[in-house]
Amino acid sequence: MRLGIVGGGQLARMLALAAAPLGVRCRVLEPAADACAAVAAEHIRAAYDDPAGLRRLAEGAACVTFEFENVPVASLDYLVDHAPVFPSPQALATARDRLVEKTLFNDLGISTAAFRAVDTREDLDAAVTALGLPAVLKTRTLGYDGKGQAVLRAAADADAAWAALGGVPLILEAFVPYGREVSLIAVRGLAGASVFYPLTENSHRGGILHLSLSRANDPMQAPAQEYARRLLNALEYVGVLALELFEVDGELLANEFAPRVHNSGHWTIEGAETSQFENHVRAVLGLPLGRTEATGAAAMINFIGHMPSREAVLRLPAVHLHDYAKAARPGRKLGHATLCAKDEKSLRAHLPSLLALAEGDAL
Amino acid sequence: MRLGIVGGGQLARMLALAAAPLGVRCRVLEPAADACAAVAAEHIRAAYDDPAGLRRLAEGAACVTFEFENVPVASLDYLVDHAPVFPSPQALATARDRLVEKTLFNDLGISTAAFRAVDTREDLDAAVTALGLPAVLKTRTLGYDGKGQAVLRAAADADAAWAALGGVPLILEAFVPYGREVSLIAVRGLAGASVFYPLTENSHRGGILHLSLSRANDPMQAPAQEYARRLLNALEYVGVLALELFEVDGELLANEFAPRVHNSGHWTIEGAETSQFENHVRAVLGLPLGRTEATGAAAMINFIGHMPSREAVLRLPAVHLHDYAKAARPGRKLGHATLCAKDEKSLRAHLPSLLALAEGDAL
Repeated sequence: MRLGIVGGGQLARMLALAAAPLGVRCRVLEPAADACAAVAAEHIRAAYDDPAGLRRLAEGAACVTFEFENVPVASLDYLVDHAPVFPSPQALATARDRLVEKTLFNDLGISTAAFRAVDTREDLDAAVTALGLPAVLKTRTLGYDGKGQAVLRAAADADAAWAALGGVPLILEAFVPYGREVSLIAVRGLAGASVFYPLTENSHRGGILHLSLSRANDPMQAPAQEYARRLLNALEYVGVLALELFEVDGELLANEFAPRVHNSGHWTIEGAETSQFENHVRAVLGLPLGRTEATGAAAMINFIGHMPSREAVLRLPAVHLHDYAKAARPGRKLGHATLCAKDEKSLRAHLPSLLALAEGDAL
Repeated sequence: MRLGIVGGGQLARMLALAAAPLGVRCRVLEPAADACAAVAAEHIRAAYDDPAGLRRLAEGAACVTFEFENVPVASLDYLVDHAPVFPSPQALATARDRLVEKTLFNDLGISTAAFRAVDTREDLDAAVTALGLPAVLKTRTLGYDGKGQAVLRAAADADAAWAALGGVPLILEAFVPYGREVSLIAVRGLAGASVFYPLTENSHRGGILHLSLSRANDPMQAPAQEYARRLLNALEYVGVLALELFEVDGELLANEFAPRVHNSGHWTIEGAETSQFENHVRAVLGLPLGRTEATGAAAMINFIGHMPSREAVLRLPAVHLHDYAKAARPGRKLGHATLCAKDEKSLRAHLPSLLALAEGDAL
């Protein structure tokens, strides 16, 4: 049984490593020569829209999935004609456009920050008037890890924001003075059954996820699941979906969703009964879903721009290393580590050593 | 960082899958075209004693290890001159010869069944007289999974046993009326530190391991560890070693040891903090060893000769599938599954469904 994956980065790598024990081989389509997924997958080195590459990806695949949402539309059109593609191109199209995404959230009764479409300089002024300041101007498509965004704190910031981002479809969002950011990793199977992982609490640095903590028995679990369930069912979704939420005064506002396995779910590899990667593979291939219960408390920390020494990480008890074997570059996600503990107290006791390593401190 | 492995079967496969997250790539030497380790390793398709193959295996490898003990001696001689080889060829040579192995056990004060070397038909008669019957005649080398053995229940069985096995160096062992068979997975690092997994209790069928149960707080843990510690230190061992023991009237008799990761340690992938595979990789590369504590109760069942349907296995809660993606043949180990539970009671409740699947029953 073979699974095709558009993209050959670390998400494809971890999908392939999770697929292997199930007897599922992966084939990835990735133009980069040093695709880190190639450690456990056959690598088709071609552009994401290369016809011969797409043909080889679809050929004999029980399903084709992807590790990022910006798959070229023409590629998706080709793939859906030649193999089952999950999640659906419709789910990708929704996630790709912040305006479509947030409109769907609201249509489903999922609260969000107030927002307005901004296509012209005049639209921006009208949106600022309607939403007030501060507010965040974002490109509707192709934003990630904090890129394609500008914060407007005063009316005078509008010119600079427009100069930086104007010319493509934009969205202005009211600034959310949130208490914390959480994400819910949800999985829906081919037959419509859904399972949900315990909430993850996330901290960012420079727009990139820095630290995730699994949250057993979080009071926001039920409302987050209810939001996710509406979204999964409305999209007739198949696979793993990550719903990012802000908590504001005890209420959840949906920020965005990722139609794929997600960095904030990496802790599930060791910290849950079935990892998000295995469950994505199970879901898109129509296999029964695995249990999502946490096996204890878990914290995941990203290694961004530099990897600590392998020895130093492995010397820490109960820490699991994931080195993506990528060349180091500033701001690049090179690996992560997950700390597992029986309970939150023990987790908090061991976390500082791991955090120090991620900072590049010598231990 | 690269690790070379002689052999490309399921043990190499699971080593490679465990090595990848550590940023360690594996290269395997395996003559079979369908080496199942190739899913996560570079495959050198050549005989185990092919000079060009051995050269490529050693080239640039931080270490070379192996997944079986019958590596040709000439190959080991070549490898030790071109790369660090762990465990040492001396450990392999000891494990390969039942007489040398059992003699070492006794020299270290490790109890075994009584035994005698048998090189001639006359030796056999003398050994039968010395040990009494029943007894088991075994080839000193190349035996595995019950092959190369004959049970003598009466003096009249000697002729048939000699006819079947005579002509190569043999050993006669007194029959052990054991209560149970247990194994201890032990790991010794390059700097000499050792860690031990909880004991495993094993059941065989037709000479092949069928079921393993992890045993938390087993009364035999301490004596088994003491035996293993003597062996590890005497051999200046580096890597994972599996010590197989019989329990007879509350005492342990060592049967044999395997100088490698072992089928009875497969439950550690999901059932222990660090798997035997990751700890072998860590040990032979000189990295710090990981914790060996069980995370709950675990049972591992082998799929021999036929694989149950993927759907049926994945439908069972808390069961982890390992399909080696090998062609089915009678008596061939094709995969295994591990059932994890909070405690032994819950494990016993869920085990029958998994056992039924392994029998090929429809569920």
